[in-house]
Amino acid sequence: MSQKPVKPHGGDIYGATEEYGWDRNEILDYSANINPLGVPEELKELIISSLDGLVHYPDTECRALKKAISAYMKVPEECIIVGNGETEIIFLLFEVLQPSKVLIPAPTFSEYAEAARRYGAEITYFELKQEDGFRLDFTKLIEQFEEGVDAVVLCNPNNPTSTLIPKKELEKLIRSARDKNVKVVIDEAFIELTEGDNSNSTADLVGEYENLFILRAFTKIFAIPGLRLGYGIGDFSLVKRMWDKKLPWSVNSMASCVGEYLGNSREYLKASAMWLKAEKSPFVSELCRIHGIQVFLPEANFILLKLTDERLTSEKLCGEMAKRGVLIRDASNFKYLDDSFVRIAIKDRESNSRFIKTLREVVERDD
Amino acid sequence: MSQKPVKPHGGDIYGATEEYGWDRNEILDYSANINPLGVPEELKELIISSLDGLVHYPDTECRALKKAISAYMKVPEECIIVGNGETEIIFLLFEVLQPSKVLIPAPTFSEYAEAARRYGAEITYFELKQEDGFRLDFTKLIEQFEEGVDAVVLCNPNNPTSTLIPKKELEKLIRSARDKNVKVVIDEAFIELTEGDNSNSTADLVGEYENLFILRAFTKIFAIPGLRLGYGIGDFSLVKRMWDKKLPWSVNSMASCVGEYLGNSREYLKASAMWLKAEKSPFVSELCRIHGIQVFLPEANFILLKLTDERLTSEKLCGEMAKRGVLIRDASNFKYLDDSFVRIAIKDRESNSRFIKTLREVVERDD
Repeated sequence: MSQKPVKPHGGDIYGATEEYGWDRNEILDYSANINPLGVPEELKELIISSLDGLVHYPDTECRALKKAISAYMKVPEECIIVGNGETEIIFLLFEVLQPSKVLIPAPTFSEYAEAARRYGAEITYFELKQEDGFRLDFTKLIEQFEEGVDAVVLCNPNNPTSTLIPKKELEKLIRSARDKNVKVVIDEAFIELTEGDNSNSTADLVGEYENLFILRAFTKIFAIPGLRLGYGIGDFSLVKRMWDKKLPWSVNSMASCVGEYLGNSREYLKASAMWLKAEKSPFVSELCRIHGIQVFLPEANFILLKLTDERLTSEKLCGEMAKRGVLIRDASNFKYLDDSFVRIAIKDRESNSRFIKTLREVVERDD
Repeated sequence: MSQKPVKPHGGDIYGATEEYGWDRNEILDYSANINPLGVPEELKELIISSLDGLVHYPDTECRALKKAISAYMKVPEECIIVGNGETEIIFLLFEVLQPSKVLIPAPTFSEYAEAARRYGAEITYFELKQEDGFRLDFTKLIEQFEEGVDAVVLCNPNNPTSTLIPKKELEKLIRSARDKNVKVVIDEAFIELTEGDNSNSTADLVGEYENLFILRAFTKIFAIPGLRLGYGIGDFSLVKRMWDKKLPWSVNSMASCVGEYLGNSREYLKASAMWLKAEKSPFVSELCRIHGIQVFLPEANFILLKLTDERLTSEKLCGEMAKRGVLIRDASNFKYLDDSFVRIAIKDRESNSRFIKTLREVVERDD
């Protein structure tokens, strides 16, 4: 096995094709949690018809995109900031907020801490306990607000644990936070891939709670991580400060085709919901039957697994799977997890079958 | 006339279509200096065939792009950083360098000062004199190195003056700067659109001079401002620090098609050189014949004009041209310029004729 450090994120098919010699199209990428329905056909057509327009600079103010997102999310345009993937929004937010202390329930996506630290914040982690199925203890979290915390970041559904915080609980938390002058940042990158879709979102509360900021992306739901399009929803004065600080033209022209597509995306969204409903539960059942792994029940389109046989580490499993053309996410570098954790995606039935077969081959071979 | 502030950059066709009701395809955009040959056909085809690949995250390390740029520019891969347009590279450079004092000959592109200031630098401008045709006085500039300057930024050819610094002079300056511990940052965004193309570039000196950093983009030469692809070439240790600080996935997947295209771009580059050779000089001659404007002779694909009739301001001219469907760049917000300056592009013969006709109509109508 190579002694290279754990990749900071999933989805590095380029390194894998280099290291294992697989053709990019043969690889089964379960390390990134993307809608397996693929790039919507109509979106592809819009991009193709936009190619002559590449001769123009993108609209620095993303006017058409803001308008389309406003209609899709039912929030005013002036509460929306658009960026080069959600990553740009995360960094921009902390650059503008400059919080001195940020509270982050973990394990979670590492970029919040990375961004907050870059702009001088001290990070306090709040441990999500394995024995609670990594569910958030609200009462305890709210107690932490006392200690000079400026902001709390919640990933909902949470990556990598695939747990969803009920909206009612969230609103209570946002209210408590407001009373204590704490910003609440909620990353909803996967929200359209939960049962209930946007009804789980707290974006509609932005008008009511000035201390609330929502991170969003079209990356997962429209299967377009290569296109780079994220957005944020928050109080208009904060959003204005973010636009003022944002680099010009960071959103490419083709990404703005998503705006045009949004109004016609109903069928695709419906098909996505049906796929998830049809495939999640049989896939989870199959996984549960495999010896040597513990399955944390998922509320989004990805699953956290724990290897219960000590002879198998996450690194070894990832390597063995990659040799067989299947990429999974080594989750050992998530705060509070160790080398017994991996994260996998949920895909279409055929891929899921090949995945189960391969995983069984690797995990159960010493049984 | 509207009393809105001067747009910080050219190329805002979105605002213009909104304000004047023109169809985007009817507008003649002389405010952005883009190769009028348009997006190369083969590049469009590569992008189209890459669309299914949008389901993958872009390569954070831009391996294929670095390799292609390395072959194109004949510099080692480890000296290359790739970004979301040249803008990302400029800001990243100053974020890493954190210079305390930066010297900038002006008038020039405003983003250098913007970026340097954001990371705490004090800016000293060095005035390029109108009476010298805005040419750089090297001896005087080098004298300024004495006063605690950490970095100097040169735009070559310079935007908006369209003046090119001879390579021999530049090398002397880089050497003097090295002796005095001054970084030299050279923006070569338009270099392929000068007579002599890459032979005017100092990228080949990067191996010899650790204090040299080159900013580049494919935006202008391949007519792809909407795609977002810039790069930088410099000492490998500085470049490594930039990669470490760079946001992941900032370069979208379609932009990496440019890497694939580069090896086959010879014909397009040749056609571009021929177009410029054929159109620049007749266009300049026509402009010189118009009463009420002074033409600064261009060494790149754009031209700085001065309005010599005091009754006409840059704002008024821009407004009158826009009403007629022609966008030009109000250059009054460039340091050391005033409201008698505008910048225009050079395009194909047909557009240039329409441009001359329209300009004549506006400028000479009171004669």
